[in-house]
Formats: sequence, C-alpha cells, structure tokens
Amino acid sequence: MPVNGSSSNGSAPPESPAGAPPHVVIIGAGFGGLQAAKALRRSPVEVTLVDRNNYHKFQPLLYEVAMAGLEPDDIAHNVRDIFRNDDNIRFRMGTVTGIDTQNQRIELDNGFIAYDYLIVAGGAEVNYFGVAGAQEHAFPLKNVTDAVNLRHHTLRQFERYDRLRQESPDTIPDGMLNFVLVGGGPTGVEMSGALVELFDTLDRDYPDFDVRDHARVILLEMQDALLQGYDDSLQDYTRRTLEDRGVEIETGTTVERVGADAVTLADGSRIPTHTLIWAAGVQASPLADLLGAEQTRSGQVVVSDTLALPTHDNVFVVGDMAAMERDETSDWLPQVAQVAIQSGEHAAEQIRNNVQGRTRTAFSYSDYGQMATIGRNAAVAELAGGLKFKGIIAWLMWVVIHIAKLVGFRNRASVFMDWIYNYFTYKRHARLILDSEHAPKEAESPAAPVA
Amino acid sequence: MPVNGSSSNGSAPPESPAGAPPHVVIIGAGFGGLQAAKALRRSPVEVTLVDRNNYHKFQPLLYEVAMAGLEPDDIAHNVRDIFRNDDNIRFRMGTVTGIDTQNQRIELDNGFIAYDYLIVAGGAEVNYFGVAGAQEHAFPLKNVTDAVNLRHHTLRQFERYDRLRQESPDTIPDGMLNFVLVGGGPTGVEMSGALVELFDTLDRDYPDFDVRDHARVILLEMQDALLQGYDDSLQDYTRRTLEDRGVEIETGTTVERVGADAVTLADGSRIPTHTLIWAAGVQASPLADLLGAEQTRSGQVVVSDTLALPTHDNVFVVGDMAAMERDETSDWLPQVAQVAIQSGEHAAEQIRNNVQGRTRTAFSYSDYGQMATIGRNAAVAELAGGLKFKGIIAWLMWVVIHIAKLVGFRNRASVFMDWIYNYFTYKRHARLILDSEHAPKEAESPAAPVA
Repeated sequence: MPVNGSSSNGSAPPESPAGAPPHVVIIGAGFGGLQAAKALRRSPVEVTLVDRNNYHKFQPLLYEVAMAGLEPDDIAHNVRDIFRNDDNIRFRMGTVTGIDTQNQRIELDNGFIAYDYLIVAGGAEVNYFGVAGAQEHAFPLKNVTDAVNLRHHTLRQFERYDRLRQESPDTIPDGMLNFVLVGGGPTGVEMSGALVELFDTLDRDYPDFDVRDHARVILLEMQDALLQGYDDSLQDYTRRTLEDRGVEIETGTTVERVGADAVTLADGSRIPTHTLIWAAGVQASPLADLLGAEQTRSGQVVVSDTLALPTHDNVFVVGDMAAMERDETSDWLPQVAQVAIQSGEHAAEQIRNNVQGRTRTAFSYSDYGQMATIGRNAAVAELAGGLKFKGIIAWLMWVVIHIAKLVGFRNRASVFMDWIYNYFTYKRHARLILDSEHAPKEAESPAAPVA
Repeated sequence: MPVNGSSSNGSAPPESPAGAPPHVVIIGAGFGGLQAAKALRRSPVEVTLVDRNNYHKFQPLLYEVAMAGLEPDDIAHNVRDIFRNDDNIRFRMGTVTGIDTQNQRIELDNGFIAYDYLIVAGGAEVNYFGVAGAQEHAFPLKNVTDAVNLRHHTLRQFERYDRLRQESPDTIPDGMLNFVLVGGGPTGVEMSGALVELFDTLDRDYPDFDVRDHARVILLEMQDALLQGYDDSLQDYTRRTLEDRGVEIETGTTVERVGADAVTLADGSRIPTHTLIWAAGVQASPLADLLGAEQTRSGQVVVSDTLALPTHDNVFVVGDMAAMERDETSDWLPQVAQVAIQSGEHAAEQIRNNVQGRTRTAFSYSDYGQMATIGRNAAVAELAGGLKFKGIIAWLMWVVIHIAKLVGFRNRASVFMDWIYNYFTYKRHARLILDSEHAPKEAESPAAPVA
C-alpha cells in the first residue's frame, strides 16, 4: 500500500477516516520523533517518519565523534533498520520546506505528504544569540557533519603546528592551539574534558613538542558557575576537576565578537584562537516558524497540555521545538533528551486515544534527574529524589546509561569496545583527517625552504 | 631534533654524511612506503614519511566501506600512531608537488624537505584509458573518499527510487537501479559480489518493492574470463558463483563511452545506468612523471634490479609506481600489495646496506599466490606451489589473512566483530548517508503532489 494512500481531504475530520487507517506523519527522527514512531508500532494507524538524514543520531555522544573517540556509525543508526519489522511504519528521506495545516499536508524539497495527524519533532539548532562573527567562525556541534568537521579541523591544526614549529616558527599564528569553548553547560563541560584527554593522546603523536605545554583549552561561561541547574557541590566538583586536568575556566564572561583568529570578550579583552567551539545554547528548529502558532523568544511553539496546537488539535509539537509548561510552575521544560522522548511518546498516545475513541490526557513530565561527564573516571549525576553522585561512581553510571540508551545491539557493542580500548590505551582510534583529498586549499603562511 | 636537520647539500654523497645520520624521505604511506619505514625502525637513519593523508589505508577492503559493511576507521590507521614508539621516524602530512633529484629535495604544497635517500612509493591511481566520459561520470574506487562517496550515492539511489515509485512512477529514470561495474579483476568481482549482498539487506529496508527484482548488477570485462591470471577452474567457479547470486556478466565487452545516464559499449549497445563503477585498471601515480626517468606505457618508472633509479642511486621507486622485472622473464611484476610490501622492504634494506658499508643486492619477488573473495562463503585462492582452493575454505582463508594483515589490534578486533555481525544478521550497519546536510541540491524530476 502506498504510504500516502490514506490521506484524507481537508473536510474529513481525522477522528473519522473513511475506511483507511489514519495517516500519521512524524517530522524528525531525533529522540522525540523516533519515540513517537515506536509508540505507534502495531497501532491502527499508518505512520510516515520524515527526516532529512537516513539515520537517527544519539546526540549526547556527538562530542565523542568530534574528539576522535567514536565514529559516526557508532552513534548513528539507519532509520529503516530500526523499523524493519514494523509493517505500519514507513520512512521518507527529505527536508521539510512547508507545513500546510489548513490542507493537512507537508511540503518537502522532493514532494508533498498529506496527513491526518502530524507530530512535529524538528529539534533545535545552534543559537548564536546574534553574536557578531559567530555564525561564520565558530564551530557548532549539533550534527554529525559538525562533529566530523571539528575533528578534521582539530587534527589538522596539530599537523600544521608541528610543521611550522620545525620550518618557520616565526610564522606560527598567535593562539594556533588555543581551543576556546563558549558555554559551560553539559556540552561545554564534556567537550573541554574530552579535549584535554585528546591532548594526552596527541602528545605521543607529536614527539617533537609537548602538546600539554603548547595547547590550551579555555572554557567561557556567562553565568557564575558551570552546569547551571546542578547542585552547588556538583558545580564546584566539575570546575575543580576540569581545572585540575588543565582546562582554564572563565565564568561571568560574555562573548562580544568572534573573528577568524580571535574572540573578543565584553570587557574588551581578546583571546587569540582559530578554534572557537560554540556550545552556548540552542533555539527551536526554523520548522517552528512554519506552523503559524504562538512562539517563545527562542522560537519554541507554545502547545496545549496535550501537546497539540491550540488551533489545530491534529498537530502535535514535541521535544526541543515545543514550549511545554512544567507542572505547577510557569517554567518551560528544558530542551533535553528525556523531555523529547516522553513528549514524543505522549503525542503518539493522544493519537491512539483519538483513534480508539478515548479522550486525550495532559502531558506530565517525569524528571529522573540529570548527569554530565567530565572525562575519565569523572562525572556528576543528580537523581530526581535529590540523590547526588560524583567521581567514578557517577562516571560508571553515565557509561552504563549511555551504552544502554544507544539504538541497536551493534552500536552498543561497538561503543562499549571502543571505550574499553580508549580507556586502557589512552588512544583515540579515529584520528583520521578524511577530507584532505577534497579539502579546499587553505591560505597558509608562505612555505619556507628548509634545505 | 628537527626532522630536516640532517639534510646534506648536493655535493656530499649520501654514503658519507657529515656527522648526522642520513635522512631518508619516504613518499607515500601505502603498503610500500609503510613497509619501508617499518624496515628502517632502529636503523642508523632519520626517516621522514610523507603522505597527503594522515592515515594508512588497507586498500583490499575499500570495497567493504563502499558497500556499507565497514567504516573508514576500520580500514584506515593513523600513521603517527603506527610509529609512536619509533624515535627515528617522523611523519609529515603534505602533498608532493615536485622532486628535485639534482638538489636532493622534494617540494610539497606546504614546504620543502631535503633528503639523502628517497623512496618513492606514491602508488597508483585509476586509469580510465581515455574512455570518453569516464572521468566525469564513473565512480572510482581508490581512496577512502571514493568509497564513502559511492556508498552515499548507492544508498541515495534507493531512497530516490522508493520515493518516485510511490509518487510519480512515470518519472523513474531508465536503469536507475542498474549498477554497472567495468573490469572483471579482483576489485570488480569483489564489488559485484558485495553489491548483490547489499541488495539482500536493502530488500528488508524497502518493504514496498522487491529490491532483487528491480536492481541489477552488471559486470563488464574486456577479456574472455574474469580474474585474468587465475586458473581456469577458479575463473569458472567465480563466474558461476556470481551468476548464481544474480550478477549479470558480459565478457569480451569493451566500453566505448560513459554518460550521466548510460554506458555505451563498443558494439553500439547501450546500458542505462546512473552508477558506473570503474574497476578496469590503474596507472602509476603522476609523481612518476616528476622523476625524469624512463617510464612504461602505464607510467611506471623503470628501475634497476636494486630498485634504484639508473640515474640516481639514492632514489628508489617501489610498489605500484615501479616497473620491476619478474625474475627470468621480461614481464613486469603485477601492481599488487605483496609486490609493494616486498619492494618497500627491499629498498629500505639497500639503504641500510649503504649506510652500514655493505653492498646492495638485487630484488627478488617471492610470490605467495593470489586470492579474491566473491562474497559470503565464497572465494578463490591459488597458492604459489599451484595449490588451489575455492568456496568456503578459500573464503575462510581470505577472512583470516585479511584480518591478520590489518594494521593495529583495534582495527582487527573491529573488523572481526563487524564481519561476525554482518554474517549472522545479514545487515550492513554503516548504511548512513552522511553528506546530506551539505550535499548540493540535485536536479530532480519535478515533485508530484500526492494529496
């Protein structure tokens, strides 16, 4: 049966499809969309899951790909593979360019799909907060491609530095091996911890200079503490541990401008760097703007307590794109994986409720807590009840949970093996610069003859 | 000590360096160059190994990367990692743009390096034999990037086909899922065998159509048999096995012209295809032209029996770039990994002979035999003594030898695990289209509205 054969026209209410099972279209195969599709397995609906990529990526480990600890296929999983035993779920690769809630269809770069129910789970993208030069010069870390690009750039910087050191030390640009991270949330903490560990590996790769003496990691955070929202004791432990490992931390610092060779702070000071990694924040996917609904300042779509649009009850918005009220507060729920997973599941349940003649229920988020890793043997975790862990216990919890949450046996086994290998050898096996064959020639300082 | 500190000037003979150990520069970290560098470990020379990539790639398994069975990091290994315990071996990432045998230095895109001894192991590149359109439209399979591009293209063709089938079947281009391979040597045989196996996996990914009914693999070979140089019985077995598995084989066929949507044969017939894989032959790297030495028709450099240039006895050429006479025949040795490895080792030994005051020896190739895999449970092997194997025994030999020859424990373990996984699940875990985020928009048939 054709995927789109069940489309209703605008006048038929979704609750009463004429014969064919209702067609549910899910935009996005991230945590929210994937969970929604899984929740509709074996339900009396036809599902089409749409994504611009043919894989689901496990975002929490993206920084490991950037730091050469894991390969893309360790954290990405083919979507068709996930649903290969589900007769009612189809996948469609394409980029969504329009959402027509009136005529109940979405527009893709390569066609149209009609829907009876729509779940929009487009996720978030990097938010540069309008900082001058950030879009052009900062390295984001949201997509697999971002991670791979950052890895290639980082490894290439060391190759260049090693060469210039020997051949024309005078031409080494200022701050060539300064790695600056903006944002002291979990991503910034994880990346900076992973960078100093990568330095240990690279130190053996470059016997002619001491990497730890020449490369710096500088972590900038606007607030007064790292890991906002964590308990003070965990924030302090995180800061102390990162500093012990060689990360320079500057809190209460705002970035004013990003350039090709330096970042300028609000107080006018300037840090020379060719590698500024932007981990400062996210905003809702621009898909949110296509819905014509009320949005928050960061672009999230305000949804009802069932997660549907107030104006169109057959359209749900979940995950990072949705502004969902936290129970009994006026706060929005955070843009984290757990919220995406639970809200995706909830939206799917409401569709099932409709189709099976039950009434909808309000979404209620179960907060299990939060955790962040700092690096080898060090992490922090805070469970919902208030229980706190730090150090090696938290790190082991982090490792076990992250392996368990990966999709598919093969990815779990592979990540587990890689981590064991990296742990004992202090190596990062994926130290490959794979784009050099087709990389554009870069402007380099003129080569100095050596002979 | 700086890598290039030991450079002599043109007038000092390499055999008598003034104080500093002689500087050996090796161009290329393929099988030949890598083996040469390994053979000079702990020798009284300083070695600089140069490659445009920061990794050594295991070429025999490149087709597995193209067919989503392995990831690049399974078959590629960071060069610095290989030599991290060797104090006298340095790595330099760069593309060689000139070789000045007079002044004993090479020119890179990013500098110069002086040498006392030079080993040129630049390998080979695809040879299109001047066939019109081949360079523009055929997919080569020499570099990791080639393999990854071919994988992305192959997977994307199925995504497109699935979409067009549902939305506008009339617009499906002719031969959209025809995969045509040119060249019935080991690469063509391995690729075509791997392609039909990939179809089995994809058949479960696309429940709406039977992949084996719609996708074709067509293997074209100019000669009358596949695997030229193998025993007749193995050639027959190979052909029969591939045909049993669904590969269409046309021998005695010459390609006249390659277009974007078809290949034209010498007899005027035309096979529609959007995926023509070129496995027809190789020619010496263009580095060979920089040496100003005698070359064969396919560009190989004619070397003396010690593998040095007749005109410059401190310059050696090894591997695919070298035309080396087979003992007691007027044939050239084949361009295969074993020849590269043994000739790389021999060149390194001659340099050691010089440095340690011994005389040079002539190169003599030990032929251990040859093997090619056809796919699951099927391979052919022919040992030097005339012993022949085919079927599952040859396949097990092939698996064991290829895992054993990979560089590094981690790659061996990873490939072993992936193969076990692929074998039992019939899956190819790396079915990821990783370039879609940044891929250029392609001209597609106009999207037909579906609703």
